[in-house]
Amino acid sequence: MKKLNIGLVGYGFMGRTHSNGFRKVNNFFDLEYQPVLKAICARSGDKAQEFATKWGYESVETDWRKLVERKDIDVIDIATPNSSHAEIAIAAAQAGKMILCEKPLSMDGPQGEKMVAAVEKAKVPNMVWYNYRRVPAVTLAKHLIQEGRLGRIFHYRAKFLQDWTISKELPQGGAGLWRLDVKEAGSGVTGDLLAHCIDTALWLNGNIHDVSAMTETFVKERKHSLSGKVEKVGIDDACAFLAHFDNGSLATFESTRYARGHKALYTFEINGENASIAWDLHDLHRLQYFDHKDEGQIRGWRALHITDSDHPYMKNWWVPGLQIGYEHTFVHQVADFIQAITKGERPRPDFRDALETQYVCDAVLKSAQTRAWENVKHA
Amino acid sequence: MKKLNIGLVGYGFMGRTHSNGFRKVNNFFDLEYQPVLKAICARSGDKAQEFATKWGYESVETDWRKLVERKDIDVIDIATPNSSHAEIAIAAAQAGKMILCEKPLSMDGPQGEKMVAAVEKAKVPNMVWYNYRRVPAVTLAKHLIQEGRLGRIFHYRAKFLQDWTISKELPQGGAGLWRLDVKEAGSGVTGDLLAHCIDTALWLNGNIHDVSAMTETFVKERKHSLSGKVEKVGIDDACAFLAHFDNGSLATFESTRYARGHKALYTFEINGENASIAWDLHDLHRLQYFDHKDEGQIRGWRALHITDSDHPYMKNWWVPGLQIGYEHTFVHQVADFIQAITKGERPRPDFRDALETQYVCDAVLKSAQTRAWENVKHA
Amino acid sequence: MKKLNIGLVGYGFMGRTHSNGFRKVNNFFDLEYQPVLKAICARSGDKAQEFATKWGYESVETDWRKLVERKDIDVIDIATPNSSHAEIAIAAAQAGKMILCEKPLSMDGPQGEKMVAAVEKAKVPNMVWYNYRRVPAVTLAKHLIQEGRLGRIFHYRAKFLQDWTISKELPQGGAGLWRLDVKEAGSGVTGDLLAHCIDTALWLNGNIHDVSAMTETFVKERKHSLSGKVEKVGIDDACAFLAHFDNGSLATFESTRYARGHKALYTFEINGENASIAWDLHDLHRLQYFDHKDEGQIRGWRALHITDSDHPYMKNWWVPGLQIGYEHTFVHQVADFIQAITKGERPRPDFRDALETQYVCDAVLKSAQTRAWENVKHA
Amino acid sequence: MKKLNIGLVGYGFMGRTHSNGFRKVNNFFDLEYQPVLKAICARSGDKAQEFATKWGYESVETDWRKLVERKDIDVIDIATPNSSHAEIAIAAAQAGKMILCEKPLSMDGPQGEKMVAAVEKAKVPNMVWYNYRRVPAVTLAKHLIQEGRLGRIFHYRAKFLQDWTISKELPQGGAGLWRLDVKEAGSGVTGDLLAHCIDTALWLNGNIHDVSAMTETFVKERKHSLSGKVEKVGIDDACAFLAHFDNGSLATFESTRYARGHKALYTFEINGENASIAWDLHDLHRLQYFDHKDEGQIRGWRALHITDSDHPYMKNWWVPGLQIGYEHTFVHQVADFIQAITKGERPRPDFRDALETQYVCDAVLKSAQTRAWENVKHA
Repeated sequence: MKKLNIGLVGYGFMGRTHSNGFRKVNNFFDLEYQPVLKAICARSGDKAQEFATKWGYESVETDWRKLVERKDIDVIDIATPNSSHAEIAIAAAQAGKMILCEKPLSMDGPQGEKMVAAVEKAKVPNMVWYNYRRVPAVTLAKHLIQEGRLGRIFHYRAKFLQDWTISKELPQGGAGLWRLDVKEAGSGVTGDLLAHCIDTALWLNGNIHDVSAMTETFVKERKHSLSGKVEKVGIDDACAFLAHFDNGSLATFESTRYARGHKALYTFEINGENASIAWDLHDLHRLQYFDHKDEGQIRGWRALHITDSDHPYMKNWWVPGLQIGYEHTFVHQVADFIQAITKGERPRPDFRDALETQYVCDAVLKSAQTRAWENVKHA
Repeated sequence: MKKLNIGLVGYGFMGRTHSNGFRKVNNFFDLEYQPVLKAICARSGDKAQEFATKWGYESVETDWRKLVERKDIDVIDIATPNSSHAEIAIAAAQAGKMILCEKPLSMDGPQGEKMVAAVEKAKVPNMVWYNYRRVPAVTLAKHLIQEGRLGRIFHYRAKFLQDWTISKELPQGGAGLWRLDVKEAGSGVTGDLLAHCIDTALWLNGNIHDVSAMTETFVKERKHSLSGKVEKVGIDDACAFLAHFDNGSLATFESTRYARGHKALYTFEINGENASIAWDLHDLHRLQYFDHKDEGQIRGWRALHITDSDHPYMKNWWVPGLQIGYEHTFVHQVADFIQAITKGERPRPDFRDALETQYVCDAVLKSAQTRAWENVKHA
Repeated sequence: MKKLNIGLVGYGFMGRTHSNGFRKVNNFFDLEYQPVLKAICARSGDKAQEFATKWGYESVETDWRKLVERKDIDVIDIATPNSSHAEIAIAAAQAGKMILCEKPLSMDGPQGEKMVAAVEKAKVPNMVWYNYRRVPAVTLAKHLIQEGRLGRIFHYRAKFLQDWTISKELPQGGAGLWRLDVKEAGSGVTGDLLAHCIDTALWLNGNIHDVSAMTETFVKERKHSLSGKVEKVGIDDACAFLAHFDNGSLATFESTRYARGHKALYTFEINGENASIAWDLHDLHRLQYFDHKDEGQIRGWRALHITDSDHPYMKNWWVPGLQIGYEHTFVHQVADFIQAITKGERPRPDFRDALETQYVCDAVLKSAQTRAWENVKHA
Repeated sequence: MKKLNIGLVGYGFMGRTHSNGFRKVNNFFDLEYQPVLKAICARSGDKAQEFATKWGYESVETDWRKLVERKDIDVIDIATPNSSHAEIAIAAAQAGKMILCEKPLSMDGPQGEKMVAAVEKAKVPNMVWYNYRRVPAVTLAKHLIQEGRLGRIFHYRAKFLQDWTISKELPQGGAGLWRLDVKEAGSGVTGDLLAHCIDTALWLNGNIHDVSAMTETFVKERKHSLSGKVEKVGIDDACAFLAHFDNGSLATFESTRYARGHKALYTFEINGENASIAWDLHDLHRLQYFDHKDEGQIRGWRALHITDSDHPYMKNWWVPGLQIGYEHTFVHQVADFIQAITKGERPRPDFRDALETQYVCDAVLKSAQTRAWENVKHA
């Protein structure tokens, strides 16, 4: 089997999910490449070494520029805070590396455009870790839509609800908390959570034409964990928007970190003329499906337990009834990436796909400021 | 419209559910008879008068024998504790009255046989208030089975779980508590709760051949609310049994008043070769249905919201999505009783049907004593 | 018991729900007044007579003006299409009658203002049938909020989803279909469904400050069932809006008749600093409650089965575990109306409360046209 | 880190789950030993090599006796059909190896006794893969019971429902189908599925005193996939039994492969005086918990989403809201095994624990034959 040498930048939550994906994929999928955990890079050599030991990385770097230059690295995997995605990705493209980049692609659309230009100029395979496309239930939703089972689409609604930042005592910035620091994150829930909702929506339902949004920052000031000072909070704590899709359907999107009782409740529902689909991250192995063609008396929402061998990805795992979880979406994404480069196809979502999501985020944040409907630019 | 003059004996919980059924039925169903609340009978004249005022009964009796003799009464409705069903029913039959009797039919099978003999000799319409047959979801289950959708039946399981007698301080006997007094009730959960499960099961799945049972009385002594003395508890607090149906399917039945967290959780499930059905009294307006003929990828349990006009009884009520509740089962039973007597048909379940349930209860209680499998006698 | 003579105008779906409320209320609630079904009024004498027979109305009128003038009528109950509410209500107020009016109050805010002026000038008790306030689970939500259990409110979201108008073959206008005719209904889902969501929201969460809305008419032309001609559809088939409440919370509202698979899925959720609440009309007897004060390991959403005697209204019905349904909300509203007039208190929601909902609807419909945020006028 | 050299016998479904556990455990748990995939043994050298390549085993054996003799092997992991467990385990014990054995321990109690004797004589650490104890929700259930939250236990009920053998065309015996062959499996659903239910039950609720059981073989003859002939089916397709626990609680257990619509629906519920717990393998990351001490109005079943860092095992995985799946139970079991041998403690469940389960299975199968209550022998 051919080797695919991975150089990972970042050792946080996402560094773990990616590493697990690389390590497991060949145990479950028949592929032509085997990812090799070649190097992990982090500013702190100690942290990098600790992570390398835990996950079996062969070497450690403390400067991502060195990693990018290494001849023995095929793929640069970017799992750093949003603010450094562009710089690393552009350098990696220039060095001719394949690139895997955590979502969101960039701090904003214009920055994303430069990243797209770089990878397209370098003609390197590139992909963004919008992992929820690879939840088997979500992939099945895509198949059902592609088969035309829903008919004309009337409605799309998505939410991503969390409750972890309600306490005013929670500081902003620094390890584990950079998502609260606008300088590191670019935005709050919009880039963090809504970006997931938007990526899925664009994949399932096509482009968005225009949006009307509102944002809110409930806690206005927080102590910064690096400076130690109380600073103004620059991110959006909550964001909701209305949208029209190009296909004529209406949509509502909402995200917040102030929805008490919800940890990571990403849900979407899509209503078509003939059928509807609903899904929920808290029970990710189920898909709700309603088919109006069912006989009247016994027509109802079907709770599909997505564990059968004819469900997407599931023949590679266990036996019917035995569910997989969150981490498997990353394994699937690695498998699909390898299959794409094997066949010379475009891995999806790639930087250009992710730029489209970025444009929606930009329009949303702009609308929240202008209090007007804003059209979405297209990638 | 023809009148159907009702004489009710008993003013407790069941007196209320029946009265509500009589009062409402003509508002929702087109029928040839209108029940008239002619008389309510209770030993306490004050209680009877209070009930009459509340529900609009035209007159009051304090001796059920007088009620039975009244020429202006067409139907004797028995809503008294189990111990008096037989005496009243037999007298009513001899007086030529139609009879509606609360479940269980009798204290035991032999007593029930006398009741059946009396009504069959008198040729009077008779019915027992096993109301759960008339939950629209349960009636739909019956239709689906009759249409052969399930194929060969492998399994039947039913439970009726409550938690209201866990406290040792709860007295036994007297108003509201006669179900704890073996002299009034005949048995505990077997006659009270399992009788419901058995009636439904016999209706849906045919006769039971044999049973192996266990019973338990968790609280051995309770103060009697009439005598004021601590007395031995004679009822079964919990009962579970295994059974073989005549059709070759296996069954488990369980009932208890010690299942913390469940108020009236009557559930049943039936697994056939081709399809399965499940139902739950705590959400009585839903039926769960699984059909193996559904296409593989989108096969799952369907949650049917039984509120559409093509669902049993539902065209008489509101509009799709708007649910009915517990009390409506009694309205349905009155409607069906009237339709039966209009057409000269046998109302179901009648005394003979209910005797079959009694025989199963007898076999269950006997098996719990003998610790052996017991065959069920048939009505 | 004192009599409360009812004169009902309209015999449709709402005429039935109100009549059932009047007929049942004294069987279950101890009250100082007994509603008497004195007269039903409809333009068609035959239809009125048929309804009177079914429900026990003592007399029939074919001109609502005559009904309003009758000395033996205490209460005018308006169950006609929206376009006639104002005229009847104002005449009834001038005649000194108490008034019960179906929702929405009026065709728009200015018309509603005249109705409020009329009843306030006449000092007659008045109430609008926003019945969902009286679902026991919803009333319990109100109590929990009033007790301060939720703390600062961050989010409110409500939806009312139906699917009954998807077919292009469905005509507009006429009996049973006047909700599709803008001349009769005033608006589409906004006045029909969102008005319910808004009434509950104002009750639970206070006033709304501003809104940004979108509406859509998916089927542009329909045959009119009275004229027989294909005519332009004037109603909104779907409407969604963002809102800020005065208390600083953010809200999303959505309603449609094009959500395949949902019959009457009215849901709301409210997220507070300390606790959250969610409810769903398709399982109306349940309330979901999350309390962050619960011990960490065993903290989760509680599925409350609202059938216990300490739940609102439930001690008047059956026993724990046995659910009530949709129609009972009207019984509760009649009981509460009688208790209010007995005590000389203001029945709620009254015309002035309902005018506030009308103002929100007006702002929503205006925003959908201007594509701008619109402030809400207050009653 | 110290190495723990694994020698695996068997490459089927369980070979995969164990291997995945060995490979992943150090990425997520801080432990003093690292399992090393030293050798895989199977009769077919090709199959063994294919498995070794997929999972990274360093070497291959085709005779388990050779594997047992290898000096470089610390742990023999038995993942073969039930009929060979005893022989391999006893030899491994005699060779002084630690032993991990798939469940059920043995073909029957007497055979299990010899295995227990062997490991106890050899004083080697030993464990049986009753993996469901390590579902975090199930482990939490254990903690809640140990803390005394449930009080006196009244009821235990467990089911394990599947539907994969309904077709008469399904052959018996051979790869993937040995569970249908009584010579390989010892019994049908009793040893395969009920053994899981019993292991959990003994762990949560203590020993079982006596049982009354019934079994059924719905399809009497099947083609044998090795002999090619139609042969009598020797296994039980379904089994249900009643039981008394030593603590006075009553139990029902049921298992079948003929419950249409259920893939691997292992559920249990336990009702105590003060609280109840319910769990379901189809949504294994949730625990249902009811606490009677909750305030009356807001008392209900809590749906615990077992993904928080204070839930058992979960601080080692991802972040709140993100669920794990079936395979993780094996990772947990490896981690716990390593921690036990590090501390010199008894890994649980060990052979002696598993023998107790075997005795219950024996009593169940005997009772099904004798149609009498049978007492359970104790380990």
